[in-house]
Amino acid sequence: MALQQREISVSEFFTKNRHLLGFDNPKRALLTTVKEAVDNSLDACEDAGILPEVWVEVEQTSAEDRFQVRVRDNGPGIVQEQIPRIFGKLLYGSKFHRLKMSRGQQGIGISAAGMYGHLTTGQPITIISRTAPAEPAHFYQIVIDTKQNEPKILRVQEVEWQPEQGTQVQIELEGIYQRGKWSVDEYLEQTATANPHVTMHYAAPDGKKRDFRRVSSELPAEPKEIKPHPHGIELGILIKMLQETRSRTLKTFLQNDFCRVSSRSALQICELAGLYENARPKRIATKNAQKLLKAIRNTKLRNPPMDCIAPIEPELIKAGMRKEFKADFYTAITRKPTVYRGIPFVIEAGLAYGGALKQETCAKLMRFANRVPLLYNSGAGVIKQAIASANWKQYGIEQSNGSLPAGPLLILVHMASPWVPFTSESKEAIACYPKIEKEIVLALQECTRPLRRFLRQKQRNIEERRKHKYIEKYIPHIGVALQEILQFSDGEREHVIENLSVVLQKSRAG
Amino acid sequence: MALQQREISVSEFFTKNRHLLGFDNPKRALLTTVKEAVDNSLDACEDAGILPEVWVEVEQTSAEDRFQVRVRDNGPGIVQEQIPRIFGKLLYGSKFHRLKMSRGQQGIGISAAGMYGHLTTGQPITIISRTAPAEPAHFYQIVIDTKQNEPKILRVQEVEWQPEQGTQVQIELEGIYQRGKWSVDEYLEQTATANPHVTMHYAAPDGKKRDFRRVSSELPAEPKEIKPHPHGIELGILIKMLQETRSRTLKTFLQNDFCRVSSRSALQICELAGLYENARPKRIATKNAQKLLKAIRNTKLRNPPMDCIAPIEPELIKAGMRKEFKADFYTAITRKPTVYRGIPFVIEAGLAYGGALKQETCAKLMRFANRVPLLYNSGAGVIKQAIASANWKQYGIEQSNGSLPAGPLLILVHMASPWVPFTSESKEAIACYPKIEKEIVLALQECTRPLRRFLRQKQRNIEERRKHKYIEKYIPHIGVALQEILQFSDGEREHVIENLSVVLQKSRAG
Repeated sequence: MALQQREISVSEFFTKNRHLLGFDNPKRALLTTVKEAVDNSLDACEDAGILPEVWVEVEQTSAEDRFQVRVRDNGPGIVQEQIPRIFGKLLYGSKFHRLKMSRGQQGIGISAAGMYGHLTTGQPITIISRTAPAEPAHFYQIVIDTKQNEPKILRVQEVEWQPEQGTQVQIELEGIYQRGKWSVDEYLEQTATANPHVTMHYAAPDGKKRDFRRVSSELPAEPKEIKPHPHGIELGILIKMLQETRSRTLKTFLQNDFCRVSSRSALQICELAGLYENARPKRIATKNAQKLLKAIRNTKLRNPPMDCIAPIEPELIKAGMRKEFKADFYTAITRKPTVYRGIPFVIEAGLAYGGALKQETCAKLMRFANRVPLLYNSGAGVIKQAIASANWKQYGIEQSNGSLPAGPLLILVHMASPWVPFTSESKEAIACYPKIEKEIVLALQECTRPLRRFLRQKQRNIEERRKHKYIEKYIPHIGVALQEILQFSDGEREHVIENLSVVLQKSRAG
Repeated sequence: MALQQREISVSEFFTKNRHLLGFDNPKRALLTTVKEAVDNSLDACEDAGILPEVWVEVEQTSAEDRFQVRVRDNGPGIVQEQIPRIFGKLLYGSKFHRLKMSRGQQGIGISAAGMYGHLTTGQPITIISRTAPAEPAHFYQIVIDTKQNEPKILRVQEVEWQPEQGTQVQIELEGIYQRGKWSVDEYLEQTATANPHVTMHYAAPDGKKRDFRRVSSELPAEPKEIKPHPHGIELGILIKMLQETRSRTLKTFLQNDFCRVSSRSALQICELAGLYENARPKRIATKNAQKLLKAIRNTKLRNPPMDCIAPIEPELIKAGMRKEFKADFYTAITRKPTVYRGIPFVIEAGLAYGGALKQETCAKLMRFANRVPLLYNSGAGVIKQAIASANWKQYGIEQSNGSLPAGPLLILVHMASPWVPFTSESKEAIACYPKIEKEIVLALQECTRPLRRFLRQKQRNIEERRKHKYIEKYIPHIGVALQEILQFSDGEREHVIENLSVVLQKSRAG
């Protein structure tokens, strides 16, 4: 039995569990592949301060269920040595080990897409990249050696390539192309909504072309990389940080390795923990680390800085919803940043009501994480849970227990954070951390207040109109009655009726 | 930027993403820890042909939110060299690389629990194990070096230990202990239900003790390890198998490396693919592998063998439901084995109706995968989806769109397979493969047929009773009328009334 015990490589694990990565059926596989490539392109451009322009081509190849996905960007390109591991090794990248808001964070996505392509078509992933007009373009064909989780380079060469700079990824895979819900089209539309600074050119398999032009030529403020916030840090992480720090004293460790710890707070924490401020961090034993953690948790600290997060902002959220649906009412808010497990995050929410939104169905839901639309698994995760748990009935909106509210309603929720806790590696739903749920509920409450005012006003208007109609109906009779009482001429009667109508009109306008 | 590109170790990945493993909140963390340890114990015992007896102790330690979890079994013990990596390395084990039905399959669970314990309390995982009465018992204290994903042994020694054989795992962790839904208690209860051959002794943190005694002293038939079924195999896997096989010819490769391929089918596949039966598997190029795959898919093959799966069986499912709920009606069925992605599986389902089950609420749901109760994430996954998509209204059972049916109903679903595709590493929900969904729907339909008969019979009985009551009411009047017409005496009238009542009673009994 001992002989059967073996190491399992990450690639083997995810080959067998490819549904964890969003490759559980051919339709979703196609979407996931486009999504991973586009998200990477946008991250690369924004990191380099370049306004993103992305070309997405999906082309049917030999068989009905085989597609070539090609995504090219105008980004900074990738230095040659890094190409193989970025595209041919799972759990490799620059985004995992930093705390900075970005679309990718795991170092899995694009290599997993390549792995799926190879699994279903036997074809390698193809990359062309150039870092500057004066540099040569490099062409790579790569597959993953799943037993080792290492890239196997099939071909590498310098090539002639038109674009001056950027990266192009090409993956052939088994897929199904459909428009509508959960499609590549929907993903691109919603991406355009949440990223007004992005231009995308899309060529669909049926030959149709579509351009999503940027409506803002300003890059969003670049989110800063931050250090962890001391509140919410865990004992094991604290011990590890104490071991690995370059700071020489406990006080400087607290000040330098975390955000929002001033010299004064650092001293306060040391005192509260009963630890010497000049103690060597590496020498602090587990027991004292526990005291330190307790002291940290009992010390008041400022909330994490806002500049590590780039929210979409209410005006753009409303504009995005307007683009998607013609409604009678729009509202949106951005909450203040707060912390879960030491990691800052911001919740934004928007509501649209009435108009072209349909009455009979469940509310429409748009979910975003770090500006990336989440399409699958809407039933799972904290956003659905928070919406279902909110009390919509008090706003006159129908809702059966544990479901989305019903009615002509569009709900948009965005979570922005240097680390979004997804429920699976496919990054389609956000895990149910109580602090995140609470923030979403509060955001929705903030949005429903103006909605309630709108709905009350609407109700009042309906009432008013009903009363006016009633009065209007009787004006001629009043005219006749007055004529009889005051012995008007017919002309005078008509005059009185007219006057009364004008008075009514005026009061209505008011 | 290139400098920031780094490898991410699996342990680092899962530390940051611990919610993927079922450690997103303290209550669930406690449950997950007990579950991983008990599942391992049961697997070890059954693999060794030992009737499992497991001792589970959960004890509060220094602080309110700190618990010591201790799980001991009478299993075969673990050879000393394997202990560190089994408990101190993620993605290591014997179950991933074989196709055999077992509770564990990923090589993550127990080391992740140890990692979470260390993360929250700074304490190592402690193991004692003895492989035979004559052997010494070994004591280990281990933590994971998360940067390397390798075990770091803090202490190892031979110790005096009472038990003659078995393994004990001890983990200290931050947790919350609560009874009721999603609790350790519920997990143990449901485990006992689905595993009548298991004895468990449970000591809860509040000092209460509870024994779950086995009701069957027969081990379930040991599920056989199988080879993959050719239908559903993917191109990438086929290419890999061709490269790695020890078979010298294509024909023997097909016969030996897969199940259900006879000599005749193998020849048929070769012919259909236009490939020489004695071709060397390693020399078959990607293009020919594609032809081979097509030929495999177009060749009729027997379903995979049943003996790789040990279902619970209808009688035990009904017994299990009876133990949990007093209902008026029980039914259960076991479907025939079928295949998804080349992997065989069996769906079992049970229904209970009426009695102590409450009318007003949603149907109760019990989910199992390879005899392990699934408690969390019941909203996600294929079981919920299949139940919600079934048409319950035609059986007179209320259901709002996309929800579980309402009414006094208990639904039990069990999936048994050498490889269950979970939606996340925490193994609490099964991924939505269409073939699995279809089987669940069919299983439920099979169960609802007898339920419909029962409900119709019940309806008829109510009707009948109503009619009888009506007649009963008029019997005295009939007596009086007959007396008047036939000039009975009062005694005769009473006699007639009595006779009529007896006739009615008899018809009712019939």
